[in-house]
Amino acid sequence: MQNFTFNNPTKIVFGKRSISELAKLVHPDEKVLMTYGGGSIKTNGVYDQVKNALKGHRVIEFVGVEPNPEYETCMQAVKEAREEKVDFLLSIGGGSVLDATKFIAAAIPYEGEDPWDIISKGMEGRLRLAVPLGCVLTLPATGSEANGNAVISRKALGQKLAFSSRHVYPRFSILDPETTYSLPERQVINGIVDAYMHVIEQYMTYDVSAPLQDRLAESILLTIIEEGPKVRKDPYNYEARANIMWCATMALNGVIACGVVEDWATHLIGHELTALHGLDHAQTLAILLPAVWKHQRVQKAEKLLNYARRIWGIESDDSETAIDEAIDKTVGFFNSVGMPTRLSDYDLTPAECMKVAEQLHRRGVKLGEHKNIGKKEVEEILLLCA
Amino acid sequence: MQNFTFNNPTKIVFGKRSISELAKLVHPDEKVLMTYGGGSIKTNGVYDQVKNALKGHRVIEFVGVEPNPEYETCMQAVKEAREEKVDFLLSIGGGSVLDATKFIAAAIPYEGEDPWDIISKGMEGRLRLAVPLGCVLTLPATGSEANGNAVISRKALGQKLAFSSRHVYPRFSILDPETTYSLPERQVINGIVDAYMHVIEQYMTYDVSAPLQDRLAESILLTIIEEGPKVRKDPYNYEARANIMWCATMALNGVIACGVVEDWATHLIGHELTALHGLDHAQTLAILLPAVWKHQRVQKAEKLLNYARRIWGIESDDSETAIDEAIDKTVGFFNSVGMPTRLSDYDLTPAECMKVAEQLHRRGVKLGEHKNIGKKEVEEILLLCA
Repeated sequence: MQNFTFNNPTKIVFGKRSISELAKLVHPDEKVLMTYGGGSIKTNGVYDQVKNALKGHRVIEFVGVEPNPEYETCMQAVKEAREEKVDFLLSIGGGSVLDATKFIAAAIPYEGEDPWDIISKGMEGRLRLAVPLGCVLTLPATGSEANGNAVISRKALGQKLAFSSRHVYPRFSILDPETTYSLPERQVINGIVDAYMHVIEQYMTYDVSAPLQDRLAESILLTIIEEGPKVRKDPYNYEARANIMWCATMALNGVIACGVVEDWATHLIGHELTALHGLDHAQTLAILLPAVWKHQRVQKAEKLLNYARRIWGIESDDSETAIDEAIDKTVGFFNSVGMPTRLSDYDLTPAECMKVAEQLHRRGVKLGEHKNIGKKEVEEILLLCA
Repeated sequence: MQNFTFNNPTKIVFGKRSISELAKLVHPDEKVLMTYGGGSIKTNGVYDQVKNALKGHRVIEFVGVEPNPEYETCMQAVKEAREEKVDFLLSIGGGSVLDATKFIAAAIPYEGEDPWDIISKGMEGRLRLAVPLGCVLTLPATGSEANGNAVISRKALGQKLAFSSRHVYPRFSILDPETTYSLPERQVINGIVDAYMHVIEQYMTYDVSAPLQDRLAESILLTIIEEGPKVRKDPYNYEARANIMWCATMALNGVIACGVVEDWATHLIGHELTALHGLDHAQTLAILLPAVWKHQRVQKAEKLLNYARRIWGIESDDSETAIDEAIDKTVGFFNSVGMPTRLSDYDLTPAECMKVAEQLHRRGVKLGEHKNIGKKEVEEILLLCA
């Protein structure tokens, strides 16, 4: 096992009717800026529950955070928050709103010229504070509710970049599985694949004698495979909704990453695909994963065999066959929950996507747990996505 | 899944040579009271590592916290800490020192007449603050390094009682597996069984549709079964030491308890056995568990069958046979790591231990996840421990 530090201060309040807890979680003296996306929280009752819980609190609102939250939008909120001197940010929605809110929280007190530097120039380590924030999560997917990570896009530059800071862990995250009943199917599918992929990025590398962490990761994968289809079959199945929601949080709250080697190649290539071609984040991951595994099958062989055996019950004596079968089973699982796994499913060809490799190359990024995936390898991976 | 709140603010610093991190974790302005047990930390180098890391800090020491830490000892430390106006408590050792330190931390600012009331009269909920504390853990067992629980004994009253407060979570816990190389075998064995039992108490109840939590618990059990014997075979096996240490923390940091039903009957009966007959904590658990399971086999049948299948690979069609076999396998595992499972192994008879039942009865305690274990049932369980 590798040395590690683990510290996750976020309070998770999980369960039916838990939004009412807001009254205790937000201090009456705090002036709150509520951030959210479009109108869905107004039609599914979440908005009303939040406003009811915060009766008597000073609350202003910032509406219109988009999927793949945009830097320009965040900066409008920063301006408003500075003018209104807010003390607390409350994100209502999924990972996009929450990621935006984290960036807003860091940007408000940022004293440098352009807050985009926090992300693009890696100034996150120099952050000394952020406005405290909390969230009411309505979409299980990104795990953002229990970590200090955020991904922000800047369309004008064709960029989608991540940052991470201990100052933007939510002070609390409220997770009521009932709020997910009314999610559009596409978001449900994206969430299942996103959570699965977060586990994979922290698991499918090489063995460092961390058998507990391996089993914890496998526990989440097995539960997503078991519960994901139930959610799609019966959107009002509370237990399945709750289990998927908790899987998504556990997938990226840092627990399974303790002391192990991580990858994140699929995510980083995927971010470029989203930035350049507009695919949903999870859609890019489902396309790229099989290709990354085929390309890195030698480097990942031991772990792929473990995955084949423990997740899919594949006991083949021939390791190449077992790996092929594990990749097929994974593709089959994604397809079974309604997620395509080919560029052609979106009328794209590898040739059209080669700028992805160039863009990563320009930033000097080498990917994978062995840092062996450069421009040429990304191109090879894209060819496998046809 | 049941509703739950999860919040664990402790920073875990894990790995080789991690004690040197103390320099950054303790603020130079904080006057530190170091608490520890006997001399073992002076012979195994831990004391020197701590003192080196804290060079330049104001540090005073309180020596002599015993196993099953005693109220009277704690109160001596409270007196010293108050007189010396210490700002921070640093526990060096295992769960006993740490539990004592938590009680000391709560008792120092306690304004009531007798700090024992915090525990005996359930005043823990009224605690408004405690002196901040941290730990260097040298014995993987109790999980105290990542929770707000402590167990304190008061021999004069024949009592051993637990309390829990969010104010006594360690601010940090340093876990260097190398510090465990020199542990006496008895403590190693106790630690393996204690960690295993913590998982069992949060797992072996009834199904509430929490498949992820079940699998997480099983992950810890399987890893303890796999790594425990390695530690005993080769005390200098770093990886095995690290894995057991992380299992013990994960067993009681609150993660596997999220949203599930807990039991703790075995622990509560065990505390009385320790208080009255002096057995080590883990020794009492290993004796009581098989008896509790035999007694509660109907109530726990579903989960026992799950445990039989997933932990021990028992696929018998006959559920009674499968449960018997699972209990036998568990006893076999305890014995294989050197832990006896009978009162007679300590020259005790059930008849001699009946005061245990009386003492629990006098406090009006009903045990088990169904609250169906009263005086009569505890007596029946003790008879099964012969």
